[in-house]
Amino acid sequence: MPMPTHPVLDWSRSAAHLRRSHIVTTSPRSDEDGHYPCVLTRGSGARVYDLDGNAYLDLTGSFGSVLIGHAEPAVVQAVTDVLTEGNLFYTGASPRRLALTERLLSWFPWAEQAVFYRTGSCAVSAAARLAQHATGRRRVLSSGYHGWHDWHLEAVPEAKPKMFESYATEFHNDLAVYRSWLDLHGEDVAAVVVTPEPHRFDAAHYQELSKGAKEHGCLFIVDEVKTAVRAGAGGFSARVGIEPDAVTVSKGLGNGHSVSAVVGRRQITQELSEAHVWSTYQNEQVGFAAALASLDFLERHDVAAVTARSGETVRQGVLDLFAEHGLPVAAPAWGSMFELDFDATDEGLAELLEAALLRHGIFCDTGDDFNMMFHIAGHTDELLERFAAALGDL
Amino acid sequence: MPMPTHPVLDWSRSAAHLRRSHIVTTSPRSDEDGHYPCVLTRGSGARVYDLDGNAYLDLTGSFGSVLIGHAEPAVVQAVTDVLTEGNLFYTGASPRRLALTERLLSWFPWAEQAVFYRTGSCAVSAAARLAQHATGRRRVLSSGYHGWHDWHLEAVPEAKPKMFESYATEFHNDLAVYRSWLDLHGEDVAAVVVTPEPHRFDAAHYQELSKGAKEHGCLFIVDEVKTAVRAGAGGFSARVGIEPDAVTVSKGLGNGHSVSAVVGRRQITQELSEAHVWSTYQNEQVGFAAALASLDFLERHDVAAVTARSGETVRQGVLDLFAEHGLPVAAPAWGSMFELDFDATDEGLAELLEAALLRHGIFCDTGDDFNMMFHIAGHTDELLERFAAALGDL
Repeated sequence: MPMPTHPVLDWSRSAAHLRRSHIVTTSPRSDEDGHYPCVLTRGSGARVYDLDGNAYLDLTGSFGSVLIGHAEPAVVQAVTDVLTEGNLFYTGASPRRLALTERLLSWFPWAEQAVFYRTGSCAVSAAARLAQHATGRRRVLSSGYHGWHDWHLEAVPEAKPKMFESYATEFHNDLAVYRSWLDLHGEDVAAVVVTPEPHRFDAAHYQELSKGAKEHGCLFIVDEVKTAVRAGAGGFSARVGIEPDAVTVSKGLGNGHSVSAVVGRRQITQELSEAHVWSTYQNEQVGFAAALASLDFLERHDVAAVTARSGETVRQGVLDLFAEHGLPVAAPAWGSMFELDFDATDEGLAELLEAALLRHGIFCDTGDDFNMMFHIAGHTDELLERFAAALGDL
Repeated sequence: MPMPTHPVLDWSRSAAHLRRSHIVTTSPRSDEDGHYPCVLTRGSGARVYDLDGNAYLDLTGSFGSVLIGHAEPAVVQAVTDVLTEGNLFYTGASPRRLALTERLLSWFPWAEQAVFYRTGSCAVSAAARLAQHATGRRRVLSSGYHGWHDWHLEAVPEAKPKMFESYATEFHNDLAVYRSWLDLHGEDVAAVVVTPEPHRFDAAHYQELSKGAKEHGCLFIVDEVKTAVRAGAGGFSARVGIEPDAVTVSKGLGNGHSVSAVVGRRQITQELSEAHVWSTYQNEQVGFAAALASLDFLERHDVAAVTARSGETVRQGVLDLFAEHGLPVAAPAWGSMFELDFDATDEGLAELLEAALLRHGIFCDTGDDFNMMFHIAGHTDELLERFAAALGDL
């Protein structure tokens, strides 16, 4: 496939759209709608398309939430079928909710119940509150990102000014800080809530965290919003040999449709009413249908293994290309996700690379994980060719 | 239409399903899955159907979020069309988001921008945080229910124990309390966030609240999650002659699909990044498509007026029936919603009535609002016949 050396993409329709959008919704800030020159409007399998008709191989997987591929026909069909039956009813129980619950319990055999939400933030906030009610304790010890809600704001320094004293304390995966907090205040710690950073910490680290929590009678909750489904049955927890008291699950569950869950021991989930963690949309049929169809596909096609293999293929290929070009980069990985760590002396490289990749038909965020979708597996050669062309174009 | 005097409905499949559900998800508590003997699994227009095949006229409108009717074909078609194009992309801007924004701004002409979420709770939490950042102030004065999130927990006494000191203070629509709070601490109040209780307070009340907020430099936010779309263009705010700084919008917007928005002045919405109120699923195409199709329908069929008329027809009919039976009840109403206030001496009546209505093919929650859907208009005679039969069966 011949690639132009310095392709110039037409983004004029995207640009016009963004100018209008910036007036009435969000802004041209680079952390809002100003990051990319293009507006993605369509996706199919491994590819996304922008308003101007340009095609890209998608390495974001829409924040990791589209795990199979865009508009996957089996998921589309399941959701289409549900629409004509009605999406939301006053009673929460439904055959799809029960089926999804039983499916999630088969993925997490130590768990006893599942309760559902729409977003990852909502699931983790619910888990924290449920744990407070289950233990009668107040504090939460936390490491890693758990979403945008208030209780977690202390851990999001950019969301200044801090608006209230949260019950959450961040220990930044520092085991010494963790142990001393537990020793001093363990009897007031309802739960330890940890988001896996498998690029950075090993199984022993998480086993140590789990052990510490249990020793102090704290519930141990793994925020697997990103990892639970991507890792396959058992999630990240099973990979590092721990049995938490609850996991939160979302990305990949509905292949881009909003659905999330707290899957855990009854001790936690039975506090649903007392903790008042419910709301209007939590039993939408669309989310359940999307999740059931996605899980069917994930199991049938061993998506966890396939995406991990293509992740490793792409990662090694990319590392080789960087080495050929004498560019300093590391690529810490976990399964189907990896990130690029650029040498600190080369601060502009990530941005230049992202722009070059975009021009060469690869959509990614070099400041975040590269998340393999299942359908990338059929395009790894093309992906690496495009990557090579982009590097040559730097 | 002949109605049996004491119908006995078969709920055996629902009962079996609930027994299984109570083991693995939620519980038989009456405030969880134990409230109703039936499991609703299908809806079409004004009717919902349970697992056993029984049909009911639906007076809940799924918490008021299904405003047209279940599985409304125009909305179903719009969502179906979107599915094959992909539901979620890494870039947030999209033609549907822009179109929905412009549509909402035409409903609220004083507003400048709209930002989107999935649930009502998320929209109101975001509005509160955005206001804190816009003003640099900390406290929120609140009346009414705003969802399940932490900051609002003080206003939800049943969610005990209280887990932290929130920045929100509840004034329970007490103008004297409100004024003294503003006089004492007004300079630390970022926003006044009020959920309309139009059954109970008149326009002057809300004008007074708005005036107080403005006098103290506080942002005035009306939590119109339930009222904005139901009331028609302008929402509740326009009906009582106020121009707030922001409204929150959700129920009815997607005809049961989860989508919510903060619609407000740029001063508030421009804090999106600084306030860190964003997340993975907030730009789902399904929600935008459902909302655009719903708003088309709502405007074309003047749904606000139609539902208000059928609400009044049903309410008057129900009051006449209660009077015939010599039963003491009041029915405070607002447009297409009304509730039944039973005499305090007759505590069991609400529960008995709900059970009788269910047996006679009316699904409702006598402890909550009756929310008219558009398609109820074609069934008000049947509804009142069934209501009469249920009252006769008490």
